[in-house]
Amino acid sequence: MTSRAAGVAAASSGFDGTDRSSPAGGASCNEPPRVVIVGAGFAGLAAARALAGAKVAVTLIDRHNYHLFVPMLYQVATAGLSPADIAEPIRRILRRARNVEVLLGEVDGVDVAEKLVRLADGHEVAYDTLILATGSRQSHFGHPEWEPLAPGLRTIDDAREIRSRVLLAFERAEACDDPKERRRLMTIVVVGGGPTGVELAGSVAELARHTLSRDFRHIEPASARVLLVEAGGRVLAGFPESLSRYAARALERLGVEVRVDAPVEAVRQGGVTVGGRDVPAATVLWGAGVAASPAGRWLGVGTDRVGRVPVGATLAVPGLEGVYVLGDTALAKDGNGRPLPGLAQVAKQQGRHLGNGLRRHLEDGSPIRPFRFRDMGNMATIGRHAAVADFGWLRLKGRPAWFLWGIVHVFLLVGFGNRLAVTGRWLWSWATYARGARLITRNPNPSPAE
Amino acid sequence: MTSRAAGVAAASSGFDGTDRSSPAGGASCNEPPRVVIVGAGFAGLAAARALAGAKVAVTLIDRHNYHLFVPMLYQVATAGLSPADIAEPIRRILRRARNVEVLLGEVDGVDVAEKLVRLADGHEVAYDTLILATGSRQSHFGHPEWEPLAPGLRTIDDAREIRSRVLLAFERAEACDDPKERRRLMTIVVVGGGPTGVELAGSVAELARHTLSRDFRHIEPASARVLLVEAGGRVLAGFPESLSRYAARALERLGVEVRVDAPVEAVRQGGVTVGGRDVPAATVLWGAGVAASPAGRWLGVGTDRVGRVPVGATLAVPGLEGVYVLGDTALAKDGNGRPLPGLAQVAKQQGRHLGNGLRRHLEDGSPIRPFRFRDMGNMATIGRHAAVADFGWLRLKGRPAWFLWGIVHVFLLVGFGNRLAVTGRWLWSWATYARGARLITRNPNPSPAE
Repeated sequence: MTSRAAGVAAASSGFDGTDRSSPAGGASCNEPPRVVIVGAGFAGLAAARALAGAKVAVTLIDRHNYHLFVPMLYQVATAGLSPADIAEPIRRILRRARNVEVLLGEVDGVDVAEKLVRLADGHEVAYDTLILATGSRQSHFGHPEWEPLAPGLRTIDDAREIRSRVLLAFERAEACDDPKERRRLMTIVVVGGGPTGVELAGSVAELARHTLSRDFRHIEPASARVLLVEAGGRVLAGFPESLSRYAARALERLGVEVRVDAPVEAVRQGGVTVGGRDVPAATVLWGAGVAASPAGRWLGVGTDRVGRVPVGATLAVPGLEGVYVLGDTALAKDGNGRPLPGLAQVAKQQGRHLGNGLRRHLEDGSPIRPFRFRDMGNMATIGRHAAVADFGWLRLKGRPAWFLWGIVHVFLLVGFGNRLAVTGRWLWSWATYARGARLITRNPNPSPAE
Repeated sequence: MTSRAAGVAAASSGFDGTDRSSPAGGASCNEPPRVVIVGAGFAGLAAARALAGAKVAVTLIDRHNYHLFVPMLYQVATAGLSPADIAEPIRRILRRARNVEVLLGEVDGVDVAEKLVRLADGHEVAYDTLILATGSRQSHFGHPEWEPLAPGLRTIDDAREIRSRVLLAFERAEACDDPKERRRLMTIVVVGGGPTGVELAGSVAELARHTLSRDFRHIEPASARVLLVEAGGRVLAGFPESLSRYAARALERLGVEVRVDAPVEAVRQGGVTVGGRDVPAATVLWGAGVAASPAGRWLGVGTDRVGRVPVGATLAVPGLEGVYVLGDTALAKDGNGRPLPGLAQVAKQQGRHLGNGLRRHLEDGSPIRPFRFRDMGNMATIGRHAAVADFGWLRLKGRPAWFLWGIVHVFLLVGFGNRLAVTGRWLWSWATYARGARLITRNPNPSPAE
């Protein structure tokens, strides 16, 4: 397969870097500098947008053809939204940015000496400036064998998998007449009391209590057991204690059992071991640790414990020319030397900062300024009319926080069509408790062992 | 795994029918008669709805947890709608029918002597009356090896596969600089000039011409070649000739090449052979033949060439007690001895007729009346403002037919939420040409041979 994207050279002899059809290294006088961005998440997309119209040739590479609004993925996992509602084609977002081209591909390496990005299909893309914004993935605390048993929630496939598992467990319980096994089928354990775990647990509990309540003949979905386990001392540890307490109470009102100081010791086919006790559960969902993408490995630089690449104040990787790392995969520090958290708003601000900085640098040679994170506040939703929001100067909980969460998140969605669709579906769900995307899309007849 | 659904018995020793926990055969005096319906398509669902509230215990078995509105599946395949927009959970549809229970499961046989339906997971479901409404599947004219190369459009998975293939072909063309290969990547062949083929071809052409038009940098999606090939003498052969001519013209206005009298002779990895000529094409979509489900094999009765089970005027299978076959998998005849076509309206009317007939039969012993198909007319859509409708006494084409198609199909959708969602998405697409579900959900890096 050959290639014609700007800056893309077909590797005629594997990855050895010889015989490329375009010269690597600096741009010629005629050609604008080449900026290659890997990853079209919050950071990469913000950088590409900031560079739209600048005198640079931008190539944005992602392995998916869409930008995914991860903060609402839990609603896909719990049948409230369709995947397309929170995913927008990258090409469509950037269709007016004529200096930006989008490349669908899987990056599997970087040649920092030759300034080339390598794709899994053999293509190579030459850069003058490289921005790696490849995000993070689920981490099962050094237990990769738990991964198939307790899926995390990072991709659309993850969300579909969780949706299918949760709905399928109720289907199996309906057809089961062993009370013990039925109980196991109707037990859902959510691991991790951060925003993802809290949102998942609350949404699953509402699904069981309200959405499914009249749909079965032999089971009472409302009696499902939803267990949220957190190794630390409280849920939503990133929030003030008063909001953590409120969140735990709100979850319990929804019927979620909240267990703190309860580290997961084992995940098995039939359930989990938490704080020394076995919990038989057919469905285990993973909302706990994350690890950075392999960007550090590609660059051949050291990383921290979870794989993040240390960057300087301008987000550049020390010792490498023209290489920047952003978002979840970067270890950036605030003014006090504390690492910035892996939040969408950090990634977005970094992308915008670097994009604007590069643009100015090219226009008048001004140096890229140090990045400073501006905390826009922190929100998490628990269930209908229940959410928390912390803006430092203002703390909200309950109905006001819940409305604010909805408004902010619809506003942050990319694409006006998605905003309409999500608002419509939310209003409909709010009025009826119905959820529009209750599809089981995996094989409903797996091995009986499961 | 054990079971507790009414009429469901765990087979403790395989499928031999011994040692079942509930007696097969007729219902006892206390228990209502057991009606088992296999398949929750148009026919099965209509039968279940007609039996709602009757003094029968209905078990509706389907291998999916949703009823799929197949006539709009091509819009999922061409990125206009999300799967959930045209799929409604069967349980939700029937939640108020307390005498109907829904069982998620794959049927793989029927024991007509013992009156048992066998599921793939080893369960058996006893019936007094059995209604098989298992539909049809794609048939590749005795060339099963064409199936992976030219996917048909019968299921949500099919639609996702087609969507991914079409979008991926444009992505690959964008990254390709060999003009010949680029041409092949941008050639889409649709096999079959029936409603499915016409709708697919028109919708793919509109996707290329309008939706994708500004999204690429190196290719002009509007120059994509969409070829509709039909073995017979005209497209939409089920419609009057004047409407067929209109449809062909409308397709050509959209940029579709229409070739009639052009049987497909070969489907290969790189393209197709049609009417003796090789057409290099990366994407081949199958809208041609269908074959009935294996219901005939389960019953051990003879079928016609495409696998349909001959039924009598009451839709009962001659020679079997209490067994009815409906919809695409039945060979039913009209008053003149002509086979009824495999249409949603035939299936739906048969289901309602049989459900009502069984209900009356149980109430006052009146015999089930012969089924008579009432032709509600025939519609197909080609593209924006272009459709055909034939009601016998009235023929419409163009804009009036297109509006009517939209109104009728929204009305026929199951679930008010779906009606809202689809109307909203259609209005949005109509205003902007955008399509909301442009997700590539298969591996974008398959073998280079493809």
